Amino acid sequence: MKTLIENATIIPMTSEREIFQGDIAIDGKRIVALGERPHTFTPDRTINAHNMIAMPTWVNAHTHLSMTYFRNYRDSVSNLHDWLSEIWKLEDTLIAEDTYPASLLGIAEMISSGSTCFADMYFFPEGTVEAIQKTKVKANIGITLFGDLQESKERVAERLPFLREQATRSQGKIRYDIAPHAVYTCTEATLRYAVELAKQENCRIHIHANETLQEVDDSLNSFGKTPIAYLDSLGFSTVNCYYAHCVHPQGEDIAILKKNRATVVHNPSSNCKLGSGIAPLATYLDEHIRVALGTDGASSNNTLDMFQEIRLAAMLAAASTGDAGKVSPFDILSMATIGGATALGRDSECGTLEVGKDADLMLLSTDSLHMTPLNNIFSALVFSAKSSDVQTVFCSGELLMENRKILVLDEHQVIQEFNDRWEQIQHRSS
Amino acid sequence: MKTLIENATIIPMTSEREIFQGDIAIDGKRIVALGERPHTFTPDRTINAHNMIAMPTWVNAHTHLSMTYFRNYRDSVSNLHDWLSEIWKLEDTLIAEDTYPASLLGIAEMISSGSTCFADMYFFPEGTVEAIQKTKVKANIGITLFGDLQESKERVAERLPFLREQATRSQGKIRYDIAPHAVYTCTEATLRYAVELAKQENCRIHIHANETLQEVDDSLNSFGKTPIAYLDSLGFSTVNCYYAHCVHPQGEDIAILKKNRATVVHNPSSNCKLGSGIAPLATYLDEHIRVALGTDGASSNNTLDMFQEIRLAAMLAAASTGDAGKVSPFDILSMATIGGATALGRDSECGTLEVGKDADLMLLSTDSLHMTPLNNIFSALVFSAKSSDVQTVFCSGELLMENRKILVLDEHQVIQEFNDRWEQIQHRSS
Repeated sequence: MKTLIENATIIPMTSEREIFQGDIAIDGKRIVALGERPHTFTPDRTINAHNMIAMPTWVNAHTHLSMTYFRNYRDSVSNLHDWLSEIWKLEDTLIAEDTYPASLLGIAEMISSGSTCFADMYFFPEGTVEAIQKTKVKANIGITLFGDLQESKERVAERLPFLREQATRSQGKIRYDIAPHAVYTCTEATLRYAVELAKQENCRIHIHANETLQEVDDSLNSFGKTPIAYLDSLGFSTVNCYYAHCVHPQGEDIAILKKNRATVVHNPSSNCKLGSGIAPLATYLDEHIRVALGTDGASSNNTLDMFQEIRLAAMLAAASTGDAGKVSPFDILSMATIGGATALGRDSECGTLEVGKDADLMLLSTDSLHMTPLNNIFSALVFSAKSSDVQTVFCSGELLMENRKILVLDEHQVIQEFNDRWEQIQHRSS
Repeated sequence: MKTLIENATIIPMTSEREIFQGDIAIDGKRIVALGERPHTFTPDRTINAHNMIAMPTWVNAHTHLSMTYFRNYRDSVSNLHDWLSEIWKLEDTLIAEDTYPASLLGIAEMISSGSTCFADMYFFPEGTVEAIQKTKVKANIGITLFGDLQESKERVAERLPFLREQATRSQGKIRYDIAPHAVYTCTEATLRYAVELAKQENCRIHIHANETLQEVDDSLNSFGKTPIAYLDSLGFSTVNCYYAHCVHPQGEDIAILKKNRATVVHNPSSNCKLGSGIAPLATYLDEHIRVALGTDGASSNNTLDMFQEIRLAAMLAAASTGDAGKVSPFDILSMATIGGATALGRDSECGTLEVGKDADLMLLSTDSLHMTPLNNIFSALVFSAKSSDVQTVFCSGELLMENRKILVLDEHQVIQEFNDRWEQIQHRSS
């Protein structure tokens, strides 16, 4: 299938200076021309992108799709740890089959808000993988480790063969990473095993770290080190890691993140919503630490909408530094695109619009009240744009949404099946 | 005209416990029944609100519609004062005729995001009043005072007769307040004159106060008092006031606001965006200080979307106190509805859904991916809902938007005329 997108305002996200009017040619899964249409290109399908921005789709670098059931559920607790103890009660009753309707709803929400690639962390990968196959998006699935070594080895034995097979069959659209939950939920042996496994499988580690002050204090008490420093001492420096949250770096943490070329996944909504705090984004960027952006689960956000993360990240950076010019709109948009792609090891494949990369792109309407006037396109994307501006979404050259209609699933059926399943879960646990 | 809204999930915003399914009967401008449809009520028009929330429309208690031209314009400066000096250069070239297209676009954006009442502050009221008449919304127009007494008296002489007439002709849909800009832009005589005038006209004072640390420091240096304390000493305690921003209360400021039953208008987006800081919302609420919510101008936000203010206010309150349960979703929604109505002296008229009040209400769809599941309706409205969920909007019983189509203007024409005018302005000042 050959697709021609005509007359778009193209933001490839390769540099702040690159904005141009032009066409995008897609052949199969890849971008084959950007700017000028090649004379030899005969499209099967042409899309008029007049008054539209064409840009890379978002990479949501930290989420838990199966927790979408808990959106707006028990919101009134005062912090992460109290909230987790409420949620864990209900999670104990979840079974593998529950994760498909939740993942499908979550992916639909992500497509409709311009995300086509994500890093998920949950106990049962099967339902999420099935939802990814159906919707033709991309993901790094975290094989979650939790508890002691035996428990973790059992989880891996159950899930690794399945995920290896899926990675091969999907030709890399599905990948897997090793996802030990956190220092406060995994034993030292489990954490060391995560490193060993990531090396063996040539994949990455996805973990929560330094999310709350309590977590940091407990880690200092238990291990004499912050979570980031403790993980470093267990060999995390020897593999590629992306650390979710990092709200409270202390001591050597920033130096460690920098030395290891690790990625911080900034989750501003979740960090605010759960009262965890405001991560020092400007400091991370000043120190040239890699930063990606993620929504966390819908249960602590309470959306999967990267536009909300982008706007909130910019707002918090300006408010917390007292300098509105400190972090630029382009920097924030980079985190949400190529920053995420780099964290997930997909930077040669997506995160920017470039010839040879996969056509993972969206078209956003600018012909709306809130995008008028379009004085600065990067500011407009960060501060004014909304997920409802996303009109059309491609992933690997496949059209997933057109004129706001999701083509890879029936939205109303997905909502219905999700609600039915959520009723069953609540009934089961009552 | 008699309208029946059937089968809605009604949130009157009178109490956190009041949520019920039912009908709303509107006769002329007023709500005549809520919950059960009266047997004797024969509607001219019936709206099916199945899967919709019916609730009061937002009151945007601090904005500058004429500045909509400057949306995303010169965003990269580091603080309010540098930004104002950029904006003022361009504002000097604005003429009265420029304000109509900007006000019309701004009001259209507000209607489409569920606001039907606002407090505006700008130099030329005529264009804004004309846009209000066309769109059938409500507003308190600030008569802006700026500079010395003579300048201020000239402004008042030019504008007061016009606004008095509009207030009468509109039967209160248009009101006027006295709006001295700030302590750093008005002389003492101007500020004293504002008090005198507010008493004479039996109206309110709308002013910026304690927005930045620099403003507070300068005020302490010049007057030996914070802006709030200085205004108090000039007689602001003797009239009803609403103070925009109040990011940095110091010394006796909180006691003064409380004593005077003044309203703080919280502008979280603008305060973050311009690097001003995070207002201590939880403290204000703990002290039972009245709080309303506003977007400020689109130029420092960069939208006029109260859903963004609501979500950000909740996020900042949780992050800055470290307690996710400190400020409830219901409290935030109250600020955006009855809190604003009270600030503007319209609490007997709007801000809640009650029999006898004006039908200023919106219908929001809940049948969407991001509102599923609807575990807690107040949390959902604060953390998950978006302006694109607003389907239908009434103001004083008049239907302004239905199924997301604005009925009181032609959206594309408004955008076109706005863009043409903005080109003229830029040409004029270049």
